Amino acid sequence: METAPILIDGRWREAKSESTFQATNPATGERLSTHYPVSEWADCEDALSSAVIAQKQLRELPSERIAAFLSAYAGRIESAAASIVAAASLETGLPATPRLRDVELPRTTNQLRQAAEAAREESWKQAMLDLPRNIRSFLAPIGPVLVFGPNNFPLAFNGISGGDFAAAIAAGNAVIAKAHPLHPETTRLLAEQAQMAAIETGLPTGTVQMLYAVSNDDGLRLVGDPRIGAVAFTGSRAAGLRLKRAADEAGKPMYLEMSSINPVIFLPGSLVGSEDRLARELADSCLAAAGQFCTSPNLILVWEGRSAEALLEAVAAIFHERTPQPLLSLAGLQQLEAGVASLIGAGAQLIAGGQRIEEPGYRYANTLLRATGKEFLAASDALQREVFGNATMVVTVADVSEFEAILALMEGNLTGSIYSDGFGADDEIYDRIEPLLRRKVGRLLNDKMPTGVAVSAAMQHGGPFPATSHPGFTSVGIPASMKRFAALECYDGVREGRLPAILRDAIANPRTWRSIDGAWVRG
Amino acid sequence: METAPILIDGRWREAKSESTFQATNPATGERLSTHYPVSEWADCEDALSSAVIAQKQLRELPSERIAAFLSAYAGRIESAAASIVAAASLETGLPATPRLRDVELPRTTNQLRQAAEAAREESWKQAMLDLPRNIRSFLAPIGPVLVFGPNNFPLAFNGISGGDFAAAIAAGNAVIAKAHPLHPETTRLLAEQAQMAAIETGLPTGTVQMLYAVSNDDGLRLVGDPRIGAVAFTGSRAAGLRLKRAADEAGKPMYLEMSSINPVIFLPGSLVGSEDRLARELADSCLAAAGQFCTSPNLILVWEGRSAEALLEAVAAIFHERTPQPLLSLAGLQQLEAGVASLIGAGAQLIAGGQRIEEPGYRYANTLLRATGKEFLAASDALQREVFGNATMVVTVADVSEFEAILALMEGNLTGSIYSDGFGADDEIYDRIEPLLRRKVGRLLNDKMPTGVAVSAAMQHGGPFPATSHPGFTSVGIPASMKRFAALECYDGVREGRLPAILRDAIANPRTWRSIDGAWVRG
Repeated sequence: METAPILIDGRWREAKSESTFQATNPATGERLSTHYPVSEWADCEDALSSAVIAQKQLRELPSERIAAFLSAYAGRIESAAASIVAAASLETGLPATPRLRDVELPRTTNQLRQAAEAAREESWKQAMLDLPRNIRSFLAPIGPVLVFGPNNFPLAFNGISGGDFAAAIAAGNAVIAKAHPLHPETTRLLAEQAQMAAIETGLPTGTVQMLYAVSNDDGLRLVGDPRIGAVAFTGSRAAGLRLKRAADEAGKPMYLEMSSINPVIFLPGSLVGSEDRLARELADSCLAAAGQFCTSPNLILVWEGRSAEALLEAVAAIFHERTPQPLLSLAGLQQLEAGVASLIGAGAQLIAGGQRIEEPGYRYANTLLRATGKEFLAASDALQREVFGNATMVVTVADVSEFEAILALMEGNLTGSIYSDGFGADDEIYDRIEPLLRRKVGRLLNDKMPTGVAVSAAMQHGGPFPATSHPGFTSVGIPASMKRFAALECYDGVREGRLPAILRDAIANPRTWRSIDGAWVRG
Repeated sequence: METAPILIDGRWREAKSESTFQATNPATGERLSTHYPVSEWADCEDALSSAVIAQKQLRELPSERIAAFLSAYAGRIESAAASIVAAASLETGLPATPRLRDVELPRTTNQLRQAAEAAREESWKQAMLDLPRNIRSFLAPIGPVLVFGPNNFPLAFNGISGGDFAAAIAAGNAVIAKAHPLHPETTRLLAEQAQMAAIETGLPTGTVQMLYAVSNDDGLRLVGDPRIGAVAFTGSRAAGLRLKRAADEAGKPMYLEMSSINPVIFLPGSLVGSEDRLARELADSCLAAAGQFCTSPNLILVWEGRSAEALLEAVAAIFHERTPQPLLSLAGLQQLEAGVASLIGAGAQLIAGGQRIEEPGYRYANTLLRATGKEFLAASDALQREVFGNATMVVTVADVSEFEAILALMEGNLTGSIYSDGFGADDEIYDRIEPLLRRKVGRLLNDKMPTGVAVSAAMQHGGPFPATSHPGFTSVGIPASMKRFAALECYDGVREGRLPAILRDAIANPRTWRSIDGAWVRG
């Protein structure tokens, strides 16, 4: 039996492991043949030592070199797109086209190139010079950074190629990527390109390393290890909170993106006469990738009455009619099943779906539930638990006070959407509920669904706990996402020749904004 | 018995409490007459409700109003300076002049005015506009904010007037200040001025509130309460870590400044012929305010040999000769005593001091200890514990490798200083140890002592754990310190009239820098 190698200190080598795992094609349930190692601590130790050396060397490199790596890597991913997309599609059940080839892969390379550009420009470092006092500071690398990628975006959030990776590298950090065990071959292929791009551009050998899997205990130990400067995690709330405790205990910055039900609110005037159109818009958003997006709308709040019933009916019809996409794993299917059962147990009524589809692969019927505002208020904890997959609940609300009570009990979320009419009839309600919703979400939307997170400098893909661990940071959007992986370093009275280049009186890079004695200037 | 009132919802009122406490004059040990309440949870509950309402109203106010409050408050503190300084001197034993009147009070009003200016300018909000996609974001208030002030700066770090307060208010937050129980009257006098300034400038009534004391349990409950958006704490490591656990459990941003021994390193060439001058510089820094500064140098690293001995001898002489300032409290004296005993128990040798001074008040002899590098390495945990007060340890190091081993084991600190000769003889050692020290400190200094933290935009008064809880933030330096109290809020497709003023296409404030479609512009 051959076992895939891991990427440590710049080269592919056999893992120190006693167990292996295989990936599965979730569209068929068929187990794929390659074995991947579950690394023992010895591998983690090697990765840590190498990352520390790389981190020291990275500090001495001009940012241009890091940018060159990110650009070269993006180009290489494009050249190897066919095999990467094929592997990702096989391991995730996501369609090769358009999803992986035409949407997610370009998003991935776009992120890497935006990160390269930000690294080249250097303004994100917020260099501050107080010349009369000779005090100077900037955002310096915090790393090495440990990245745990999620199951649902094998390319754009992959620990070795996604947004966290791009941000951490662009901020000048070495990265140890922990692959998601549902798509090891995809991760291996990406890591191959990363390694070659790193060699081509002469980065330190330990800049980019990758392990497929570690034990839970070793995961906690890695997070708490003093050699790791910061950790990024995207995944389930249970796993996230377990790792967060280890980070908190060690006093370590950890950025988590954990769970979100992304409330979508239809104010009364928005629905009348538009029930069918909005039902389609909603169903498209809920069912995309079988609902396995972080921003998938799981909770729909709507005024009770005729329009609400029409919306429910139209959504149910679409849910019935559309063929469910495969879920990412058997465990995901089981969790979805248990989640729907728990919503029903807490008082929700099943309108559509609610059972497995006994076909090859892991599929669950598109599932629609409903509850009243009163029912929601009576069991708000249970009824706002994220159920990851193609299940959505509509809550019919009696009046504005009930609405306010629901929003007051709502946990932190990544997004919240409000649909309202175009003629001002909903404005009074909007003004009452917007402040309540605003506090609970990172991104507030008007008249649109939350899925489809633009890679924009103005994006906030984050929000209050438990959606993430800190509402001041975002995991999508450059350069903001890079600031997560920086420490504020101050030089006080340090001799000119000993300062980092960006803090010296004169700067070579004409594009870098710096604050000098209180004024932002460049050149 | 009359008990001082607390400041809740804009007015002074009797506390709901069953116990009280009194302050003490640490210079005499005499108990001061006024009683201050230990609030029960009912007071916390009232403060929380009021803060939530204020926070909602603050969002609607133009930043100019918040700036007006901060300026008015600074002016009022100056007008009431005589009584504030007298109370602070009585409660802390710190000299009224120059320390309190001429240094700390001007620093406090200066911070408030700098915060006012940043609030007025609004660039700190980092407004980002992506016009083609209509996605916009900015740093919005995260509050209400709970501030725990420390014992050692009754004005400049006071929960109701210090750096955390100024930053939290300037960022648009309501503040609940928890006074330090060692200086309740000072805090009451400051809160009086804050209340009047808030009335004058028409801030919501719950913007500024103050409790003198709560039980430990209620402190933890306050930190974890979902109505609190963020917490700032400056104080001891034990208290900080206890509160941090409550914040971590609730997923709440908490900024702690806890402990730091502020290593000062003399490279060989820096000492030769300058032993006496540097001994004075060092002693001045160590003994200022009886060593009760966060940045007081507690660990001095020096090459073993003749110069080290000369330095030790000169420092010991000064330590003997100078009259010790009073410590802030009996508890502080006891902790200092225990701390010195524990350093001795871990292998340090006593060179000077090491006992209480049996005079009125809480005084401890200026204390100098020494250890070898080998001894330090054998007990590095115990020998790098912060001992708060006028005690300092010199470690004599045999060679560069021993030096590197010590720095590798060093915990996170606020500052680290390196003295080196002016002719390049120390440069090789500097280049070897600087990267190791840099990782462990927020502020790196050359040829100067760490005490005297300038209120500069380029300051980093922070550093890696356990000095603080996140190396990316600073508690001194405006506007950077304000970012701790902000959440990144995004508006996606939100109609123009519903956007916060700073995110609309046109902006009234001509001074605000915004990033529009990737370019920083203003006006």
